[in-house]
Amino acid sequence: MNFPFRFSISLFQTASRLFAPNPSTHFSIAHACNFTTKPYFSTSTNPSRIAMAETSIDSLKGTLAQKRASAEAQGQAVRALKASGASPSEVESAVNSLKALKVEVEALSKELNSRVSENGGGNRDDFRQGVVNALERRLFYIPSFKIYRGVAGLYDYGPPGCAVKSNVLAFWREHFVLEENMLEVDCPCVTPEVVLKASGHVDKFTDLMVKDEKTGTCYRADHLLKDFCKDKLEKDLTLPEEKAMEYKRVMATLDDLSGKELGSKLKEYGIVAPDTKNPLSDPYPFNLMFATSIGPSGLSPGYMRPETAQGIFVNFKDLYYYNGNKLPFAAAQIGQAFRNEISPRQGLLRVREFTLAEIEHFVDPDDKSHPKFKDVSNLEFFMYPRDEQKEAKPFKKLQLGDAVKKGNINNETLGYFIGRTYLFLTSLGIDKERLRFRQHMANEMAHYAADCWDAEIESSYGWIECVGIADRSAYDLRAHTEKSGVQLVAQEKFAEPREVEKLVITPSKKEVGLVFKGNQKKVIEALEAMKEAKAMEVRANLEAKGEVEFFVCTLGQSVTLTKNMVSISKEKKKEHQKVFIPSVIEPSFGIGRIIYCLFEHSFYTRPSKAGDEQCNVFRFPPLVAPIKCTVFPLIQKSEYEEVAKLISKALTRARISHKIDITGTSIGKRYARTDELGVPFAITVDSSNSVTVRERDSKDQVRVSVDEVASVVKDVTDGDSTWTDILSRYPLHSSYSSDEGVLIGDIHSKS
Amino acid sequence: MNFPFRFSISLFQTASRLFAPNPSTHFSIAHACNFTTKPYFSTSTNPSRIAMAETSIDSLKGTLAQKRASAEAQGQAVRALKASGASPSEVESAVNSLKALKVEVEALSKELNSRVSENGGGNRDDFRQGVVNALERRLFYIPSFKIYRGVAGLYDYGPPGCAVKSNVLAFWREHFVLEENMLEVDCPCVTPEVVLKASGHVDKFTDLMVKDEKTGTCYRADHLLKDFCKDKLEKDLTLPEEKAMEYKRVMATLDDLSGKELGSKLKEYGIVAPDTKNPLSDPYPFNLMFATSIGPSGLSPGYMRPETAQGIFVNFKDLYYYNGNKLPFAAAQIGQAFRNEISPRQGLLRVREFTLAEIEHFVDPDDKSHPKFKDVSNLEFFMYPRDEQKEAKPFKKLQLGDAVKKGNINNETLGYFIGRTYLFLTSLGIDKERLRFRQHMANEMAHYAADCWDAEIESSYGWIECVGIADRSAYDLRAHTEKSGVQLVAQEKFAEPREVEKLVITPSKKEVGLVFKGNQKKVIEALEAMKEAKAMEVRANLEAKGEVEFFVCTLGQSVTLTKNMVSISKEKKKEHQKVFIPSVIEPSFGIGRIIYCLFEHSFYTRPSKAGDEQCNVFRFPPLVAPIKCTVFPLIQKSEYEEVAKLISKALTRARISHKIDITGTSIGKRYARTDELGVPFAITVDSSNSVTVRERDSKDQVRVSVDEVASVVKDVTDGDSTWTDILSRYPLHSSYSSDEGVLIGDIHSKS
Repeated sequence: MNFPFRFSISLFQTASRLFAPNPSTHFSIAHACNFTTKPYFSTSTNPSRIAMAETSIDSLKGTLAQKRASAEAQGQAVRALKASGASPSEVESAVNSLKALKVEVEALSKELNSRVSENGGGNRDDFRQGVVNALERRLFYIPSFKIYRGVAGLYDYGPPGCAVKSNVLAFWREHFVLEENMLEVDCPCVTPEVVLKASGHVDKFTDLMVKDEKTGTCYRADHLLKDFCKDKLEKDLTLPEEKAMEYKRVMATLDDLSGKELGSKLKEYGIVAPDTKNPLSDPYPFNLMFATSIGPSGLSPGYMRPETAQGIFVNFKDLYYYNGNKLPFAAAQIGQAFRNEISPRQGLLRVREFTLAEIEHFVDPDDKSHPKFKDVSNLEFFMYPRDEQKEAKPFKKLQLGDAVKKGNINNETLGYFIGRTYLFLTSLGIDKERLRFRQHMANEMAHYAADCWDAEIESSYGWIECVGIADRSAYDLRAHTEKSGVQLVAQEKFAEPREVEKLVITPSKKEVGLVFKGNQKKVIEALEAMKEAKAMEVRANLEAKGEVEFFVCTLGQSVTLTKNMVSISKEKKKEHQKVFIPSVIEPSFGIGRIIYCLFEHSFYTRPSKAGDEQCNVFRFPPLVAPIKCTVFPLIQKSEYEEVAKLISKALTRARISHKIDITGTSIGKRYARTDELGVPFAITVDSSNSVTVRERDSKDQVRVSVDEVASVVKDVTDGDSTWTDILSRYPLHSSYSSDEGVLIGDIHSKS
Repeated sequence: MNFPFRFSISLFQTASRLFAPNPSTHFSIAHACNFTTKPYFSTSTNPSRIAMAETSIDSLKGTLAQKRASAEAQGQAVRALKASGASPSEVESAVNSLKALKVEVEALSKELNSRVSENGGGNRDDFRQGVVNALERRLFYIPSFKIYRGVAGLYDYGPPGCAVKSNVLAFWREHFVLEENMLEVDCPCVTPEVVLKASGHVDKFTDLMVKDEKTGTCYRADHLLKDFCKDKLEKDLTLPEEKAMEYKRVMATLDDLSGKELGSKLKEYGIVAPDTKNPLSDPYPFNLMFATSIGPSGLSPGYMRPETAQGIFVNFKDLYYYNGNKLPFAAAQIGQAFRNEISPRQGLLRVREFTLAEIEHFVDPDDKSHPKFKDVSNLEFFMYPRDEQKEAKPFKKLQLGDAVKKGNINNETLGYFIGRTYLFLTSLGIDKERLRFRQHMANEMAHYAADCWDAEIESSYGWIECVGIADRSAYDLRAHTEKSGVQLVAQEKFAEPREVEKLVITPSKKEVGLVFKGNQKKVIEALEAMKEAKAMEVRANLEAKGEVEFFVCTLGQSVTLTKNMVSISKEKKKEHQKVFIPSVIEPSFGIGRIIYCLFEHSFYTRPSKAGDEQCNVFRFPPLVAPIKCTVFPLIQKSEYEEVAKLISKALTRARISHKIDITGTSIGKRYARTDELGVPFAITVDSSNSVTVRERDSKDQVRVSVDEVASVVKDVTDGDSTWTDILSRYPLHSSYSSDEGVLIGDIHSKS
């Protein structure tokens, strides 16, 4: 798991740099901060309850430790009595005491375990299960190839999920590509080996794997070690402090372990295959790219691309030309990327095929200012600079302009994209209170990277890296220049020629030849090859003493140079341009992860009218809602159905995605159904002239004429009006609200 | 190349059913009709010139044949003279005559060859080269991984190409998915083997390949045979009529040849490896799917999907449920598909990775009517029904409603999608005079298919299949039902229960047991398994004779049944629903092919002002244009540049993709540059208050105020206004037109 090339040292932030194999460090960060007191979970785990629970867990732990100690002492006493030949009744009585203690220990253990799991993960798991159930039932997601029992790590987007995805991508294009006049490209997924050899993926894009020696089942070595340590820390309640520290240390340094170190840890802890308890092989690297063969010969190996970025880098020259040979410019690409995970876990967050949206912004390394930085510099949001993390301080809101000024963020361009990413994510509906930008620690970054920040979104899995924004310096273009032999460089013509000092070494062939004869050539070559410092030293000696001893490595000996043999000077020259490899600043978006986090942030439940069940709601903003509007005839009546069809036609003309629901179900049930799809507006047809429009979260309704309704819905979904505007413009209607439940707990104001 | 399953018998219309390996039949159809008189090529090859050329080719052929005959006769005369021992001078004179004849023959051959190629393909090739040069220079396309010398059959879309593609896809979504409320899904490209085993791709998605026996270079067997025949027909001008007929027959039946037949033809004609002249191996099938392995074990083979349709079929059950268990409904998918071509030819039309947009419309096989058919039934366009093709008649314009009524098109739903496809393609800018819908011949279709039509677009390669619209009956859902064991069926509840007659066989266990003892069970099973005809025969015999000989196959012998052993009757029962496998109607769009044809149809040249060069123009409608508008300050002046920036901001707010060009180049050159990108409108800033807007094809300009200009451009690009509207609303401006050339030849009226 060393990524000396394109990758930083940890696969977590690297490789595709979006799909973290090991979220342990992130979980630990989450815990260090205020994960459990986040607003989302506060309805069921408010801070004071947690404090109480933690106290009682601590006291339970104490009691348990005491009881265990007593049981151990009593065990020794029993053995001592037996050894001393005490009377059977004496022994029996001691054994009974021991048994009683053991029963107590067991009961305490159980109690403690249940308390820990209830507090530590129970709510998160329940919440996630609720979201995932709703998502799968309403076909936001479908495990791929389900009728053939599926394939781990592959998911389909069903109709509403697909609509959300295409809305997110359309907005990404608008927010980034259109706004910045980026050059969007679209390259194939099938990639020849040479490209991924240059990028480092062929050699280094690996995870360490172990095999069950009997069944051949494969596991990720670091997963097994992590699971073992986690299990010990969570369940072995009498773990000595020293051992606990060791396990924690192992978990924290998991990404830094070599294959050998990982192997010896697995051996040391006696870790076996989890399913069979069979022994495991030594860890060995498994390349995560899907391999294939291009053409029929079998002689052209290829891979399914693990990221879209390489397609941009190999086209740098053409794109630079397209941009009029001017820097800076950005290229962008949206497309599928592939990663053959050893054993995908974490459901929708760790998949084998996913959509990336990547930007490569090319800049002059000497000028990373950004003309539009001022447009975002006043933004304030959660940032977590490296130093704060080091000192385990909580992350806090910083002003973007300040963070760049203070040097927390390396440069304006990086800062600009951080700001734009913040705006992008929050416009989609990501909760700004559960979004932070975390700077990579020095050991997370590749040696060549200037700076790197991840947009992390808090979900039920903890803080999830969803966007990586890295200043990757000239690394990628240099790698492809070296491998392909094509110069991927920029030229900058100076407005005025610039004077530069250059070293000029002029040996006298004649004088050197006279003295050194057959060695003339080697001496001259050695003179010409001198670096500046050496040349200046030689010149100084020649001027001071008239001669100097000079080592000629191709001769393996020193020769004596005299003043007439060489002239060394520094001359001023005029240069008209500089030629350089541009730096690249790369914001890279894991679209699937962003969408999953959006689903979690948008999900809430509210009781039905009868109060006998919880209804699910996704509070998607119209921008991303899969369908903008549903049309319901209030009752099954052909007159109403005709009106509904007319409205549907008008909505289609206005390009508003919608659905008619003419089932005879009660209007309340139909509202609930549409709420669970996250549809923001519902039109109910209860007359031939006018209809009602209902907003999903407030459940407010207004009455609008049939002719107007499509344009009203268009205005409010396009963002040209707010729901508040609509409320002030049209009369409120209240007759069906009695058929619906009341929103409690998670109250939303009208937007 | 047999595709008994999902595929029709010819790979051409099959497999991905879009990417024809062998356009020969299509070329021949083009020739049968009026390819050379198509408007596009008419500027250089008008009909009368062609007629002239053809006459002179025919007379040349006659002269050549005469001269060849003379030369042959003279050769025989020389041989006869030599054999008869004639004098050296006599022989020499005869030889000289022979030489002179040979020179004449050679000259005539050359002349004829050059005339043929000039007339038959030269213009097409030149035109194509012009388009492709413009496309590659302006980065519509880039050969993928160019700096590593590329990979055959892989292309990138550069910035303008990518923009065109995303416009086409957005319009496809609007025109099909939104308009019909289709259920769009998004499934992975990585597909496990079992799915493609069920669909038939693992066994049958192959092309026949031969290998150079020494170098191992691979060739498509049918390509080599076709090339050989084509070459003979084109270049061997003295080919006997009989032989010519044979070669033509081979080319026409190429797709029907088995591997063995193909192999023996290659041997018969002495065909060798084209590059080395080495002998070739026998043909063998090569599977065209990119193979890979899912997960680390190496035990789960997978493929990159060759089409997107399977992802929909395997989800049928969930989608049907999502649609409220109601038919008809359509699902759609846009995504990448992959095909590991043996040796890709035809540039951008035959690629190894491409974007498909597919629709699967599920219907009750007993009711393929379509409620919206009337919306398209009046359309008239080129159709080429099976019978017309059989009789080699030219294709002609038919009315869609008539074609369905007359049974040319199998059903309304198929007809509806043909009409919608026509509207889709022509809205993009495909020339309706070079678009036809061609019905599959009976031998092109799979045995299960009810009907199949291809939208073919004429390009410089001939008629290219770009959309396939097939009624595939229940084939796909049945295949997955059988393989997976999951019933992919629909239920239709009858409005009223229907009476059906059912056979009821009731054996008397007691009577059978008394007579047959241990064989009781087998006799009863055999009785219950009787089909209706057999059962009626048994009943008739029992009623007539009181007993009957009855063969029990599990016993291997006949037994004697008596009347009391079994009661057989037909009873009327009420059924409340029918359960059936739906038919599927599948419109499948090859997006890359459509875009390439669109490029050809949109391309024209016009002379520059100086008349010294031809300027390229793409006449894209605003709907697909990569950039809607360019903004030019007339001269380099900071005041104008500020205005340009203001306009740019307004355009961004209006979501109009645009570009500022502040280079100091002449306005004429900048217009030419923007015309070659197909940008429909140019705003020129020549004052602080008002600017000009120029339309690309007419080169007309109007003067508009700075405040209004963004909304004017938005109106006309969104289609809310036409350019004619704009012309009538704003004053015409003419001062820069003098800087531009004049459009000749291909005149376009203002839209």
